[in-house]
Amino acid sequence: MDEWREECGVVGIYGHPEAAKLAYLALYALQHRGQESGGIVSSNGRFMSSHRAMGLVQDIFKHEILLQLPGHMAIGHVRYSTTGASLLKNAQPFAMDSSRGRLAVAHNGNLVNARELREELEEHGAIFQTTMDTEVIVHLMASARSGRLIDKITTALDQIQGSYCLVFLTESQLAAARDPNGIRPLVLGRLGETVVIASETCALDLIGAHYEREIEPGEVIVVDAHGIESFKPFAPRPAKACIFEHIYFARPDSTVFGRNVYQTRIRLGEQLAKEQPARADIVIGVPDSGRPAAMGFARASGLTFEEGLIRNHYVGRTFIEPSQSIRHFGVKVKLNAVREVLQGKRVVVVDDSIVRGTTSRKIVSMLREQGGAREVHMRISSPPIAGSCFYGIDTPTREELIYNTRDGQVEKIREFIGADSLGYLSLAGLWQAVEPSGLGYCDACFSGQYPIEFPESIRRRQMDLFIREVGRL
Amino acid sequence: MDEWREECGVVGIYGHPEAAKLAYLALYALQHRGQESGGIVSSNGRFMSSHRAMGLVQDIFKHEILLQLPGHMAIGHVRYSTTGASLLKNAQPFAMDSSRGRLAVAHNGNLVNARELREELEEHGAIFQTTMDTEVIVHLMASARSGRLIDKITTALDQIQGSYCLVFLTESQLAAARDPNGIRPLVLGRLGETVVIASETCALDLIGAHYEREIEPGEVIVVDAHGIESFKPFAPRPAKACIFEHIYFARPDSTVFGRNVYQTRIRLGEQLAKEQPARADIVIGVPDSGRPAAMGFARASGLTFEEGLIRNHYVGRTFIEPSQSIRHFGVKVKLNAVREVLQGKRVVVVDDSIVRGTTSRKIVSMLREQGGAREVHMRISSPPIAGSCFYGIDTPTREELIYNTRDGQVEKIREFIGADSLGYLSLAGLWQAVEPSGLGYCDACFSGQYPIEFPESIRRRQMDLFIREVGRL
Amino acid sequence: MDEWREECGVVGIYGHPEAAKLAYLALYALQHRGQESGGIVSSNGRFMSSHRAMGLVQDIFKHEILLQLPGHMAIGHVRYSTTGASLLKNAQPFAMDSSRGRLAVAHNGNLVNARELREELEEHGAIFQTTMDTEVIVHLMASARSGRLIDKITTALDQIQGSYCLVFLTESQLAAARDPNGIRPLVLGRLGETVVIASETCALDLIGAHYEREIEPGEVIVVDAHGIESFKPFAPRPAKACIFEHIYFARPDSTVFGRNVYQTRIRLGEQLAKEQPARADIVIGVPDSGRPAAMGFARASGLTFEEGLIRNHYVGRTFIEPSQSIRHFGVKVKLNAVREVLQGKRVVVVDDSIVRGTTSRKIVSMLREQGGAREVHMRISSPPIAGSCFYGIDTPTREELIYNTRDGQVEKIREFIGADSLGYLSLAGLWQAVEPSGLGYCDACFSGQYPIEFPESIRRRQMDLFIREVGRL
Amino acid sequence: MDEWREECGVVGIYGHPEAAKLAYLALYALQHRGQESGGIVSSNGRFMSSHRAMGLVQDIFKHEILLQLPGHMAIGHVRYSTTGASLLKNAQPFAMDSSRGRLAVAHNGNLVNARELREELEEHGAIFQTTMDTEVIVHLMASARSGRLIDKITTALDQIQGSYCLVFLTESQLAAARDPNGIRPLVLGRLGETVVIASETCALDLIGAHYEREIEPGEVIVVDAHGIESFKPFAPRPAKACIFEHIYFARPDSTVFGRNVYQTRIRLGEQLAKEQPARADIVIGVPDSGRPAAMGFARASGLTFEEGLIRNHYVGRTFIEPSQSIRHFGVKVKLNAVREVLQGKRVVVVDDSIVRGTTSRKIVSMLREQGGAREVHMRISSPPIAGSCFYGIDTPTREELIYNTRDGQVEKIREFIGADSLGYLSLAGLWQAVEPSGLGYCDACFSGQYPIEFPESIRRRQMDLFIREVGRL
Repeated sequence: MDEWREECGVVGIYGHPEAAKLAYLALYALQHRGQESGGIVSSNGRFMSSHRAMGLVQDIFKHEILLQLPGHMAIGHVRYSTTGASLLKNAQPFAMDSSRGRLAVAHNGNLVNARELREELEEHGAIFQTTMDTEVIVHLMASARSGRLIDKITTALDQIQGSYCLVFLTESQLAAARDPNGIRPLVLGRLGETVVIASETCALDLIGAHYEREIEPGEVIVVDAHGIESFKPFAPRPAKACIFEHIYFARPDSTVFGRNVYQTRIRLGEQLAKEQPARADIVIGVPDSGRPAAMGFARASGLTFEEGLIRNHYVGRTFIEPSQSIRHFGVKVKLNAVREVLQGKRVVVVDDSIVRGTTSRKIVSMLREQGGAREVHMRISSPPIAGSCFYGIDTPTREELIYNTRDGQVEKIREFIGADSLGYLSLAGLWQAVEPSGLGYCDACFSGQYPIEFPESIRRRQMDLFIREVGRL
Repeated sequence: MDEWREECGVVGIYGHPEAAKLAYLALYALQHRGQESGGIVSSNGRFMSSHRAMGLVQDIFKHEILLQLPGHMAIGHVRYSTTGASLLKNAQPFAMDSSRGRLAVAHNGNLVNARELREELEEHGAIFQTTMDTEVIVHLMASARSGRLIDKITTALDQIQGSYCLVFLTESQLAAARDPNGIRPLVLGRLGETVVIASETCALDLIGAHYEREIEPGEVIVVDAHGIESFKPFAPRPAKACIFEHIYFARPDSTVFGRNVYQTRIRLGEQLAKEQPARADIVIGVPDSGRPAAMGFARASGLTFEEGLIRNHYVGRTFIEPSQSIRHFGVKVKLNAVREVLQGKRVVVVDDSIVRGTTSRKIVSMLREQGGAREVHMRISSPPIAGSCFYGIDTPTREELIYNTRDGQVEKIREFIGADSLGYLSLAGLWQAVEPSGLGYCDACFSGQYPIEFPESIRRRQMDLFIREVGRL
Repeated sequence: MDEWREECGVVGIYGHPEAAKLAYLALYALQHRGQESGGIVSSNGRFMSSHRAMGLVQDIFKHEILLQLPGHMAIGHVRYSTTGASLLKNAQPFAMDSSRGRLAVAHNGNLVNARELREELEEHGAIFQTTMDTEVIVHLMASARSGRLIDKITTALDQIQGSYCLVFLTESQLAAARDPNGIRPLVLGRLGETVVIASETCALDLIGAHYEREIEPGEVIVVDAHGIESFKPFAPRPAKACIFEHIYFARPDSTVFGRNVYQTRIRLGEQLAKEQPARADIVIGVPDSGRPAAMGFARASGLTFEEGLIRNHYVGRTFIEPSQSIRHFGVKVKLNAVREVLQGKRVVVVDDSIVRGTTSRKIVSMLREQGGAREVHMRISSPPIAGSCFYGIDTPTREELIYNTRDGQVEKIREFIGADSLGYLSLAGLWQAVEPSGLGYCDACFSGQYPIEFPESIRRRQMDLFIREVGRL
Repeated sequence: MDEWREECGVVGIYGHPEAAKLAYLALYALQHRGQESGGIVSSNGRFMSSHRAMGLVQDIFKHEILLQLPGHMAIGHVRYSTTGASLLKNAQPFAMDSSRGRLAVAHNGNLVNARELREELEEHGAIFQTTMDTEVIVHLMASARSGRLIDKITTALDQIQGSYCLVFLTESQLAAARDPNGIRPLVLGRLGETVVIASETCALDLIGAHYEREIEPGEVIVVDAHGIESFKPFAPRPAKACIFEHIYFARPDSTVFGRNVYQTRIRLGEQLAKEQPARADIVIGVPDSGRPAAMGFARASGLTFEEGLIRNHYVGRTFIEPSQSIRHFGVKVKLNAVREVLQGKRVVVVDDSIVRGTTSRKIVSMLREQGGAREVHMRISSPPIAGSCFYGIDTPTREELIYNTRDGQVEKIREFIGADSLGYLSLAGLWQAVEPSGLGYCDACFSGQYPIEFPESIRRRQMDLFIREVGRL
């Protein structure tokens, strides 16, 4: 895959007679954050019920399944497999059972010291059944001396490093936590008396909840019959919100880190037009994520915005290619060029980012050959990606990024993708577009400034072989 | 469902070693024309192989299935159930077997005299296993005196009335036919030596075939080892291409009836802006089909085009609602309003049509309540729908159309949907936008001018009960 | 497969509020007569409902399926594929729909003139969707001038030749028919007011119905609100009940043709012991079908009956063999020898028949090598099979039968299977065991005396290729 | 369920290029020991592969699955759920992963101190994902100081009490262990150079391996590239083989605890005839498990052995009853009475045991009402069951056993089941039949002499609620 993939979405519901159903709807709105597996754990105050499976939310949760998830509290999760193989047993929420009670946890993010913690726990006799960071967190919680949920949570959070948005469920309490740098988004909303926690506001919108505020970086909240209690167990650290949520990951109708994503992308396009103008006839976007930036580019440049690439929205996971090669086949399954729009035109095509470059190359070629474009000027609404993400995004290694394989030279990248010109948004321009408010962002993948240190071992872990499982169980 | 649904898509391939695979890809591109079932029949010159199932093309045809569809010829079909219940046995292509050979047929359209023909055939002892018009056609073909495929086809076409694009397959021949009025689209393309027939050009694009021409109204072509032969067995009739293909049905990247659909929709929006201007701040479209018209409206009016409604592209067939009512729930599953774009604005929202009005009403309300729009001006890029379609589109009865339930008064419709103003494109404006070329169109659903007469019985047929089948077998 | 397989079982229920459920239970009891597919059509007097699928009865009919088969009347069917490929569309009951009403039919048997009738019907324009004889019958019924069910049935029966037990269902009537020679079994029972028709009495037993009588050869009965009416539309013909039902097909707890099957098999074994005695220590049967005959052999010979072969009752359809050959693997999956019983013994092993001889050869070898038997004397409780069946049993062609490949010489067969001795029951002995009552039997597979003549074409038909279907749809 | 159910079967293979395939075949032969789930873990010396699922072995392991289980070593498991809910996550083998290596374990038996060990481990911070005893064993192994497999195993075995046959797999070693009392069976066989471990010899037979010896009580063996090494880490304890394996659990063709099961059952029937004779005409067995004892009874009594009850071998897990009651319905699904055999007869019916009595009552009634038996004399080839099993069999609680609900009075039980007479085998007679060799047996369910003490808590555990899982995941 020639794109970055969001790792996960989480949701928590407290105080609604159909908590699992609301969790299901919220996960449905967060589907873009993880299409590999989904799960919900609910509690009615006496016992917990769970269902997890591979696949899309709407395929996993049928009516009869939801009936078997009773209770007024629930947490849910959708995921890609950043760490841990693509297996059902790695689906979340992770649930455990002990004589002192049950606990379920769902996690969006990535712990940079998970391996070290795990080895230490194994030294002391712990055994692991999954390869998920979440299991490490649960082990650390089990080692807390106090039985109070907040104490268990802080015991674990004291030891872990990395990015995390966590939701917790016991038989009687819901909790949520966000890492001190606030790398991944997490918001709090209300639907009447019901408390709703979710990765993005679009989940609140679907269930009709109103947005109240972000869970703050370093904040832990516990919700139970006594209401919401907020804890700040850590010394404050600088905000390092993931800037890529704005560029690509989040849904355009969501508000993340206090800003609407669609409007931010329009601004990115406007800024891009100022920095990287092009002599052209029309502007088109690579749908769907590149379209708002293309609209912004068109506005700032005065060029006409057109839809020159049409997306097939029935694209699924597997696709059978004919053995006789058809040119640009892979990209044709998703996109088609509109010849009547492009024919003989000088075309600016705006995309959000270039990862390996192979898709961009196919798009440029399709615009020329199938669309008949006279010139193709590619514009990217973010700076060149120069490094991997270790905070919860599934990225290629540094060596696979086209920016590195082409020696950090834009001209060589342009040559590879075959465009007449290529222009990236500058890092300064990116900050200007997203940060009039002064909030801090993590831009490590562009700048190499990683806000959280990580062990040398971190790359090796991803290579690790685990017990292979047949199929997806 | 508060929308009109296209009924079917067809494809035919001749002269490619992987004919079934190309048919599969072409059906994939035509998925929007029928998402209920799909099927392919192939032939290698000696025997025919077939596979049909309920569901989406990509779920039906896996690698191992395609391996079992050998041969250099194939026809394929995707469908909604305009006539005949939603059953596997009603999936097409329809195949039959006789001591004089095998035959498979796929049909896009609707026969207005199918019931009469069927009753007559039954009088003479024929029995039917499905409720499809296609089975009637095959019965008529079986009654031909000559064994030549073209004779069988013309024998059947002589008796049927209505709209049809048909593809036929025998062990050694491929054929295609389009009704004399040319109501539904059908095009001919080439991939090297391979002949490709498809409902829309987007199917040609995906497999890399180039567009050659339309199959003409009233034309029958037969393709075999001797090449393509064209027949015109009927007296010419005026072209009556379905105007709704441009407004809503066809994919924007397709060329149908000689015109690009996306560009036509832009023109519809421009015309709409001229006829039905609005004092407003921004223009938005109802995605995805209303977006090009909204862009055209923005261009002609000088207002800013924005994306104020975001579509969730993971929407599937079934959806579980919470029993506690959430306002506008149904539409929220598909669409979300972007408050930051809409708040306090006077908004023009452009959609392609209004059928029952319930969806429009929810959208208006969502724009106001969730989006915070100050004013909502709805503009429709086609005239009011006043009548049902009997030529292959799955429509509500005349009595269910809001235009009729509100006495044909736009003001009453506006009141129902709750907009500050409502404006439809005029019929003259519609013709102006689509017909500078002088081609004839069927606009019966707007004008009541039905180009093909139909028996009184036609509506009753749709009420008919058939043997009920459990599940979807 | 090295055995003969029963072709089908049928059932009809009239006058019970849960008719489909009773049909399901009856089919369950008849599962041994057909494990490939099953189907039920029910009627509540207003409309008919149906469900058919590939697989075992208990897997096909779940609770929710049965709920969708309402009504007080139902017919059902289980089948192997004697004619027609193994496809869902060939599953029965066959249902058709016409403006003059609906009809469903299920058939156990085989028409010898089906091909001729079909060709004639096609001459007159009929088209066929399946390869089943049943479709021919329905076509013939549709040609009747009268609309009365009995007239339609007799119109069809007048033209067909072969073996048949048929059950019919319309919206308001149930009917059943048995061919004039009474080749296949069909019985009538009652459960209170409910009329039950079934292939074997074991189906009556399961639902608690009592056995009333056989449907007589050549009899047609029609059941409706007015009660049961019996018709004898044909001149009487000599009874030709299939003698193999006693030897192998029917369940031992059933009464067929007026005789209990288990007891008949005991008698076959007793007769076999008289005709083909053996100097031996113990008698064992090939489970399960050979066990009663082995018990009879032991009784008549005075030898001890033992269970020296144990059957694995979890055997399913597909089995994966190790690529490294294990001796006698195929038979080991089904049977295991008990060494402690067999070691050093002279063993009589009784089986019901030998078809190709390959299984017998493996059993003999297993008894010797794994079981340690000193001598193996095989005894068969029927005469050598010398001819195929054309009346509804799925048999190998004449050329594949070991009796023919070994020139009709028992000694050569013995040599092939590797037994120390081999003895078949004589044809006279078989008749003596089954026919003290004087009922006539068809013994064509042993004697070559075929009671119903059949066209030359009959064998060719079975070779015929039909449109191949992918998967089992 | 009115019967005792075996808990599990295990298998281990070392030294065969298709180890997983042999494990699959062996599990297939052991299917009667557990039909709820199955699993295999294989190793090729470098990595381990696993597959576990709910269902029957033949449905779980398809060809493509087995291809993904490469390696020359494998262990496998089939199970019922004695402890732990019926969930996929409770399917075995249990596999874990650590920085010091991988380990998989499969267990047949039941630990009586599992709860205490688990609580203690949780005190020290261990967390559990399943409710299986096996997970406790793996935790204990992880606490071993030495890294050698034998040391890990003995560390765990030192602490656990109860019955166990265990097979272990690491990347390079296979191991097996049997508890010091040898309660459950475990045998060692060879197929050429390949080492095979299995619960019963019927598994060896199917794959063509020859039986070498039992794994001895208290023995641990480790198999690797250096061959087999045997360890006896415990002081010897008296043999306490489960006597019920002979009476009911094991397959009749197996040799367990050094004796063939079929022959032992014949002897039980002979002894029963001596102790509990009956004036009768015929002897029948309740198939399949009661048949050998019935044969033994017939031999010793001189009465004729008949098959008066026929079993339907297509019985599956779920069955839909008609809502209108049919008498004895439940048992009719499995068994049918042969009236021609039973009518007017005085019948001895032999079964292996009576648990709750409800099934026996239905059988007696069926023999009388449907079969027409004049007298019914029930004979049981084991003593009355007076206590539950805590060593690995899924039994009702003491309070549910009919022997206890009827105050230990045989006459009251006879009255309940409605037989004319009822006779059990005596405990002395049971021992006489099974133990000429002097081997020690556990007969606790009859005698109340439990050879291994168990905590007071043990019954409560079985009531314990675990996190409920929807479906069977």
